[in-house]
Formats: sequence, C-alpha cells, structure tokens
Amino acid sequence: MLVGETAKRSCSTVATALLFDVFGTLVDWRGGVIEALRTFAARTGISADWAAFADDWRAAYGPSMDRVRRGEVGWQNLDALHAASLAELLERYGAGDAGGEERARLVKAWHALRPWPDVVGGLERLRRRFIVASLSNGNIALQIDLRRHAELPLDMLFSAELFGHYKPDPQTYLGACALLDLRPERVMLVAAHTGDLLAAQACGLQTAFIARPLEHGVGGAVDTGSAAVDLHADGIDALAQRLGA
Amino acid sequence: MLVGETAKRSCSTVATALLFDVFGTLVDWRGGVIEALRTFAARTGISADWAAFADDWRAAYGPSMDRVRRGEVGWQNLDALHAASLAELLERYGAGDAGGEERARLVKAWHALRPWPDVVGGLERLRRRFIVASLSNGNIALQIDLRRHAELPLDMLFSAELFGHYKPDPQTYLGACALLDLRPERVMLVAAHTGDLLAAQACGLQTAFIARPLEHGVGGAVDTGSAAVDLHADGIDALAQRLGA
Repeated sequence: MLVGETAKRSCSTVATALLFDVFGTLVDWRGGVIEALRTFAARTGISADWAAFADDWRAAYGPSMDRVRRGEVGWQNLDALHAASLAELLERYGAGDAGGEERARLVKAWHALRPWPDVVGGLERLRRRFIVASLSNGNIALQIDLRRHAELPLDMLFSAELFGHYKPDPQTYLGACALLDLRPERVMLVAAHTGDLLAAQACGLQTAFIARPLEHGVGGAVDTGSAAVDLHADGIDALAQRLGA
Repeated sequence: MLVGETAKRSCSTVATALLFDVFGTLVDWRGGVIEALRTFAARTGISADWAAFADDWRAAYGPSMDRVRRGEVGWQNLDALHAASLAELLERYGAGDAGGEERARLVKAWHALRPWPDVVGGLERLRRRFIVASLSNGNIALQIDLRRHAELPLDMLFSAELFGHYKPDPQTYLGACALLDLRPERVMLVAAHTGDLLAAQACGLQTAFIARPLEHGVGGAVDTGSAAVDLHADGIDALAQRLGA
C-alpha cells in the first residue's frame, strides 16, 4: 500500500510514524513573509520589491545554516539566523533604519504562517493511523507558535535545535527516530524538497515527496521530486489517501 | 490574577507558558497500571496483590532515577528504568517466569494511562490563553503514546530525555524555558508534587500545586502542597478558572 507507481524500491515495512518538513511542505512561508513585509512597509513608509526581499531572505537560509553545519560559527537557532540575514537585507534594500521592534516583528512572521489548504485535514486523517510529528530546522519556540497559529494536529515537534544539527545532517533524522524509539525503516519523512528526502533515505527512512509547485511563487523554481523517492503525492490529503488513512 | 489566597510571594508577571508534570498530575498512573497487571494476571494465571505491586513499581522510580542523576549509571530512559524495576518485582512477587512479550506489554502500560476527569477540558481552556506543554520524566516515545491515548491537547512535549537529566535537576526546568525562549519567571510549573514545584521555584519558575489526593489510592500517601508554592488548585479546570482562562 505504501508503494506508488513511482516507487523505485520496495517498502515492505509499513511506517509507524511520519515526520513532516514544515516550511514549504506544511506552511506557505513565502505568502506569509511577503504579507508581513508589506505590513512593515505600510507602517514605515519604506517601499521595495517585497516578494524579491522574501525570496532573498529564504535564500540566505541555506548558506547561514551551512556556516553552523561546517562549525564556522557556534550553534544558532533559526530565529537568530533569520535576524542576522534580515539585518543584511534591510541594509541592502535601503531600509537599514528599521528599529529593533520592527525587526523582531519581522522575524516573528516566520512563527505565524498559513498552512496549505490540504494540510490540516490531511494530518487529521493521517493521525488516526500514524504518529505524526514535525522534523524542521525551525526552533522549538517558533514551531510551537506555528503549531498554534496554523492549528497543526501534530503529536510532537522535532527540531534541529534538539540535536544541535541542521537538516540534512544525519543526526536530525536519526535523532528523531531514536526519540520515537523506532528503527529508521519504520519512519517516513514527508517533504517538498528532494535534498531533504534523499538525506533521510540515506539514513534508512522511507520517503514521500509532496508537490508544492507554488512554494517559490508563480514563475519561481519548482522541485519536481526524484524517482529515488518512495512515494509522490500532490498534498497531505492525497498522501493520506495513498497510505490508506 | 495569578496570586491566590495561599500565595506567599508576589507574581507580578503573568506567565506565558505552563509546563505540566504528567504522572499523577495529568494522568492516573496507579489505576492504569493496576488494570494492566490484572489483565496480565488473567492471562497468565499468576495471583498477587497487584495494587501493592503497582505501588512498589512506582516506588522504585525515584531510586532508579537517582542512580542516573548521581551518574552511577549512564543515561537510561524511563522505559528502560521501568523494565529493570519490573524484572526485580516480578521475581519478588513470584512471577519471574513471565516472558519477554508480557514484560514489554506491562512496560507499555505506562504509555496508555487515563487522564483525571478535569484534565482534557482544563487544558483546552488554558490553551486558549497560554502555551501548554508537558515537562515529564517520561521519555518522548512514551509521552507521544500517552498524548494520543489520553487526547491531551498539549502544544509540546518536553522530556527529561531531551536534557539528559531527570527532574528535579535544574537542567530540566531551565532547559524547557530555554527551548520556549522564555525567562523562567514567564513560565509556570504545574504539578501534584511539592518537591518538583520547589525545585522549579528555585530555578525562578512560577508554581501551581494541583491536589490529587487519590494519586496513591484510598488510604495512600497524600501530598498537600506547600505554602511556598504560588497557587493551589483542585484540578486543571480549577486552575484555568484561577488563571482567568
């Protein structure tokens, strides 16, 4: 039942727990961040291409985590990385005068994002049959706010912060499996990002790709998945259907 | 509003998050464990005083954690501690023949306990106004099962396992506050056990005592709280009332 038409390896083991990537997979970070930037613009009278700003902010995320992952800087959680990249971007976009309270409010925009329309219902269905948890690079305080704001019915929040490692480091996938007290083959990572999925697969987890063609907006980059991933679905509700939940 | 008649210190700060002890405070461990032992007895034909067995099992918990806390043994999660003390008790109660599957089932009884009647409704009320999370010595896999079984509406599960320290070590209270990104004075520990509350208070947390006179059964030991604790309530629903939620 776990094996779809696109599966390239056999999944004879039914998963016990599903781990969900959050930004992009469960919530629309881009829409929410652009909205917060426009509210900031209305308050401060600063004008800029806020969609480009949001994209640049998200683009800074990988390199800033990589500096932590390579040990060039000590552990910093995602709020701290967002605050640092925001400071650079405000300068670059001619908004370097923005005060501390405005900056804090913008960093908090990542705590209050909307779920994609298929998410809450899909998770409710899956939760009847599987343990459902997040596995996100977002810090715990951020994920708690997001869970409350988006009403995500998750049994547990797993964060890079608990392991002192960011995805795609193996410590994150294997750390979550250890806390679940499950062998990796009993756990499935669900994500809209092929890199995340292949890293989890290398740790022995099952994998499901969720198509989110609008994650980066109309005309933006699209991740179309990989034949190596066990399962592809168009949303969380479609995944529930595929998994018989 | 946070200061009740029994409060001995002033709580000028309103808490942002409430951390709940689990065994005894939210769930009736004794009733559930006795029930599982009686089912085990019916299956195996072994007879014993199962209420006394449950009490002895719970009594083994403190000393077994203390061995971990003093560093006499390496980290072991609560499932492992329960399994070890169960083995000793089965021997002592003349049930040393019990097989591995029966033992595993009994250890799992701690994953499927019933909440006290005031808990689910009380947490729902509190959750509208506060972040609500557990802070338990139970390992994450155990707490996930418990959360699902008892339908506890908690925003996050914090466990001793995340900090490599058992309560009442300060690392647990301060570790949860750090992950919440809140100063200890913005966090309130809610528990039915005075020792837990005083340890949290020493770390700067606010404290609320919940009376659970039947935690140890009819005629059992009763914790009646301490004048040093900020707030006393007869249940989680009564706590919600007191906190204006």
